[in-house]
Amino acid sequence: MEKVKDFQWKKGMTVKEMVSDFQQLGFQSIELARASEAIVKMKKNNAKIFLTFTSNMVTSGLRGFFAQIIKLGMADVIVTTVGGLEEDIMKATGEKFEIGRFEADDVELHEQGVNRVGNLFIKNESYMAIENWTAQQLSKLYRKKKRWAVSEILREIGLGLDDRNSILFQAAKNNVPIFCPAITDGAFGFHLHMFQQDHQDFVVDVVKDFGNILFVTSRDEKKGVIALGGSISKHHAILCTLLNGGADYAVYMTTAHKTSGSMSGATTSEAKSWGKVKDESDIATVIGDVTIIFPLVMVKAFEQLEEEGLLKKQGPEK
Amino acid sequence: MEKVKDFQWKKGMTVKEMVSDFQQLGFQSIELARASEAIVKMKKNNAKIFLTFTSNMVTSGLRGFFAQIIKLGMADVIVTTVGGLEEDIMKATGEKFEIGRFEADDVELHEQGVNRVGNLFIKNESYMAIENWTAQQLSKLYRKKKRWAVSEILREIGLGLDDRNSILFQAAKNNVPIFCPAITDGAFGFHLHMFQQDHQDFVVDVVKDFGNILFVTSRDEKKGVIALGGSISKHHAILCTLLNGGADYAVYMTTAHKTSGSMSGATTSEAKSWGKVKDESDIATVIGDVTIIFPLVMVKAFEQLEEEGLLKKQGPEK
Amino acid sequence: MEKVKDFQWKKGMTVKEMVSDFQQLGFQSIELARASEAIVKMKKNNAKIFLTFTSNMVTSGLRGFFAQIIKLGMADVIVTTVGGLEEDIMKATGEKFEIGRFEADDVELHEQGVNRVGNLFIKNESYMAIENWTAQQLSKLYRKKKRWAVSEILREIGLGLDDRNSILFQAAKNNVPIFCPAITDGAFGFHLHMFQQDHQDFVVDVVKDFGNILFVTSRDEKKGVIALGGSISKHHAILCTLLNGGADYAVYMTTAHKTSGSMSGATTSEAKSWGKVKDESDIATVIGDVTIIFPLVMVKAFEQLEEEGLLKKQGPEK
Amino acid sequence: MEKVKDFQWKKGMTVKEMVSDFQQLGFQSIELARASEAIVKMKKNNAKIFLTFTSNMVTSGLRGFFAQIIKLGMADVIVTTVGGLEEDIMKATGEKFEIGRFEADDVELHEQGVNRVGNLFIKNESYMAIENWTAQQLSKLYRKKKRWAVSEILREIGLGLDDRNSILFQAAKNNVPIFCPAITDGAFGFHLHMFQQDHQDFVVDVVKDFGNILFVTSRDEKKGVIALGGSISKHHAILCTLLNGGADYAVYMTTAHKTSGSMSGATTSEAKSWGKVKDESDIATVIGDVTIIFPLVMVKAFEQLEEEGLLKKQGPEK
Repeated sequence: MEKVKDFQWKKGMTVKEMVSDFQQLGFQSIELARASEAIVKMKKNNAKIFLTFTSNMVTSGLRGFFAQIIKLGMADVIVTTVGGLEEDIMKATGEKFEIGRFEADDVELHEQGVNRVGNLFIKNESYMAIENWTAQQLSKLYRKKKRWAVSEILREIGLGLDDRNSILFQAAKNNVPIFCPAITDGAFGFHLHMFQQDHQDFVVDVVKDFGNILFVTSRDEKKGVIALGGSISKHHAILCTLLNGGADYAVYMTTAHKTSGSMSGATTSEAKSWGKVKDESDIATVIGDVTIIFPLVMVKAFEQLEEEGLLKKQGPEK
Repeated sequence: MEKVKDFQWKKGMTVKEMVSDFQQLGFQSIELARASEAIVKMKKNNAKIFLTFTSNMVTSGLRGFFAQIIKLGMADVIVTTVGGLEEDIMKATGEKFEIGRFEADDVELHEQGVNRVGNLFIKNESYMAIENWTAQQLSKLYRKKKRWAVSEILREIGLGLDDRNSILFQAAKNNVPIFCPAITDGAFGFHLHMFQQDHQDFVVDVVKDFGNILFVTSRDEKKGVIALGGSISKHHAILCTLLNGGADYAVYMTTAHKTSGSMSGATTSEAKSWGKVKDESDIATVIGDVTIIFPLVMVKAFEQLEEEGLLKKQGPEK
Repeated sequence: MEKVKDFQWKKGMTVKEMVSDFQQLGFQSIELARASEAIVKMKKNNAKIFLTFTSNMVTSGLRGFFAQIIKLGMADVIVTTVGGLEEDIMKATGEKFEIGRFEADDVELHEQGVNRVGNLFIKNESYMAIENWTAQQLSKLYRKKKRWAVSEILREIGLGLDDRNSILFQAAKNNVPIFCPAITDGAFGFHLHMFQQDHQDFVVDVVKDFGNILFVTSRDEKKGVIALGGSISKHHAILCTLLNGGADYAVYMTTAHKTSGSMSGATTSEAKSWGKVKDESDIATVIGDVTIIFPLVMVKAFEQLEEEGLLKKQGPEK
Repeated sequence: MEKVKDFQWKKGMTVKEMVSDFQQLGFQSIELARASEAIVKMKKNNAKIFLTFTSNMVTSGLRGFFAQIIKLGMADVIVTTVGGLEEDIMKATGEKFEIGRFEADDVELHEQGVNRVGNLFIKNESYMAIENWTAQQLSKLYRKKKRWAVSEILREIGLGLDDRNSILFQAAKNNVPIFCPAITDGAFGFHLHMFQQDHQDFVVDVVKDFGNILFVTSRDEKKGVIALGGSISKHHAILCTLLNGGADYAVYMTTAHKTSGSMSGATTSEAKSWGKVKDESDIATVIGDVTIIFPLVMVKAFEQLEEEGLLKKQGPEK
């Protein structure tokens, strides 16, 4: 059995060294190191990787990291909520978000036309900035055909962007489908609604997309789920891998706890019930803020996989 | 300024008395009492009430309470996730869920064909039991027309049930629309997918439903949001009231904290930024498990509103 | 196996009825009902009951409830922190605490000489009000003898008060010892320090009190722990019952989670490792705010125990 | 105003680079970066630094890190609970702790004579191993004098150890006092009790130690508090700096939230009420597991302070 080891700072310490030390540190740091190992394992064993995240993570600077992850071949399927995709477009078209305080005065912010997401601020203008752009994209789509599955729309939108830090762009370029089961739950939903008012035969087909996500993978293929936060993104990935026999690997990171019986707080111990998890090293749950935990877990995994030549080659810019 | 008062048990104490005492008790008990007051206030001022909840709450016995709330006229719009609606159907058609332990052995449960949601158990059979029923409903719908908004489907399904404890049944009977922006994120999504395989022209129109929820209410109308848990149910209600000028009242109950910047943890202090909240007594956030907090908050509100004749008459059975 | 049951409001519903319904409701409401059962069981089986709580609970109105619990014979040993005992004295000598907001402006409060404990406010004057009183008590003690165990001091102080809602008063009157292993960690510590400056031979003997708490009970006696919140109060009760062979019953209520490896978040599942817990119904952990959960749990237990004549007779006033 | 920046992995990334990027990432990662800045600031401005932690952190590998922090001159006063000090002695005398699972079977562990602290395991033997050692130390102390302040005892014990990763050893060697207001709340309390049984005139003077911690610093001196976790360690440091006019800098790291009104969850915003905090950059609260967050915060601070020559020279081994 492994022993607890006294942690020590060494000058110039790398993230890789720190996360290696976490393996013998205690409590959530150990779980974090285990999560990194499980991700390395799923890649080495050629599992198809489902990456899920919530909108607030795209509001944060993790957005560019998700794009990099797709580019490096570490995500085969994305499941997320629509708010984050809107913000990915905003950022790709030049909007900037600001860093503020959790305790900011919400009434004052409102008067300044600023929206607060935790300690990050988004200007109303940023939302307005993408209105025309989105309307044009929808017109373009409509000219091609009238009935679209959600992931098809998102792919077209990605192809229309040009930003290497964009999730939609990298996903489209790397043939990684993005699924968004609640496509109307955001400003984008309003844009779709406005467009449909004038084009009654325009149809967003969510049912077809359920088939699409099912056929992305198969019973025989190894599957892994990396779920950041909870919500329907996490649920949808679990549901869809389950319908294909269950995931072989699962890593969850969340601030929610299992005690309220919510999906957000459900741990990977349930993954054992799918019957495909081989041993404890295939799964890990880390409790904590994803903006801290995920970079640690993933950078450690990248360093390891890079050494073994398992990352997709990063070509010249983009 | 109100003073802290020593809490004392009195024999035969009612819930109303206890929650009244909570007003002077401290910490979350005070917030709970404030939440109850805010709900009474929104009803007295004829606000249109948006009630949102997540699937796990329907797994629990709150399901019958939600149905009662609709029946008593305390919810004008429901927003939820599809898992709960499936379970409402299961229960309405005779399935029973069992009470277990959070620490149950998931591998063993799997072998017994049992799904665990926190400390509640659902048999696989219960899912299978509604497969045929759902297929029949979809056929019936399809014969009427090919293109359906989500809330229209849910209304038809509710009309096909006969259980006074059913959310779908009471909502249909009392003309309360149910919105479910991620209708495919559950077994029901699979049923829809199977049905569409054989009926390619069958369309579930989520975009149209965005219009429907917008037109449920107007800028001029007073609006209140009661959000239980987080996820897209909460987000959707906030988004849609915002597009109509913002809610005048808001009560959130959740186990999530604002520190991760998630929607689940966002508090009602943000509601002040919508510009319609008149004073502090219009909003309240309570941190805790909804299965404990919500019955307390709501029973106290019911007792008060009943005395003032503001609850919808409960007719004879059903 | 018990089934989930639809919860329904009945007019005039009592707390007892509600908590009974919680048994079949789900998630933490079930754990809450189990906690109430476990407390009834420990009383019926004549266990010696260790009740622990933290200072902020005494800041709240639970203070009078703790006094009532002692009076009714439901606590045989109290373990707590010194801040709460100071506040018990303040309240017993006429000070009032106010109800405020978690989001109050701390700089402004400071200028007004107000201390904030969550959403409760304590005036600086309230602290000053007990300075003289405490100094006089210490002088009185000192005249009797020079070396005091902590619980002896607290008993003397309790005898000097006259308030039926006071923890110190009821404990002294009912021969329930109060242990406070960190007696200097508060304003009272400063008072002791000032007194010792002038009376060098005055000794507060914490080591002796460790013996006292050990001899309160024995290996053969049945023991139960009701731990509210975490901190050293909880740890001390567990440690001292363990040294006597372990508790037979344990009920923990806390907002902390086990994931950080802290004492505050440790659950009663560990209690099984003491070797004396007979079955699952002897222990329960409830996650949530004690100001909500504890009144529910305890009022339900009181109603049941009262019916069976197991509560200590409440004499005329006091 | 600073903008959110897309996070990107660079090969060989150091901890310093990552935490620098956290400044523009979002949510708790920003607060983490702010905490690191605040610690650098308190050191640069010659504040006397109070470092507090709970026992479970010493169970973990942070123990050696705390020792290194003392050695590098980054802590002037330590406040902690006794359990951790016992474990520091165990480790210094050769005992090893093991890495396990949160979900381990507690009954089975009990049968093997193993104690579980979260996902770490301590053998009963490890507790027994220090019994004799402690008894000898107490005898040695007793021969010198009969009445001891707690911090004096801990200093003597530290001098008796020889392990550069030991908190007690480094503190004694570097003249950093360790305060432990609840010295009896652990196995050490039992040892003290047994010793006092045979040496009735042996006195552990907690009141005197209150004076000692007060005189460690003064009103005029700048003071900083780094509080890891909650409990009385945190409370005691805040209380004692407050009695000296309040801290100028404060950094809290915890998994607790302010919503329950507990000390563990109290945030640094209250520090503003002490009247000495100059601006927002003097304080920071980070929500999360200390075993992950603290190494990140502190390693970043070390790298910066080392460059500026503000760390105490690390001599040859020890």
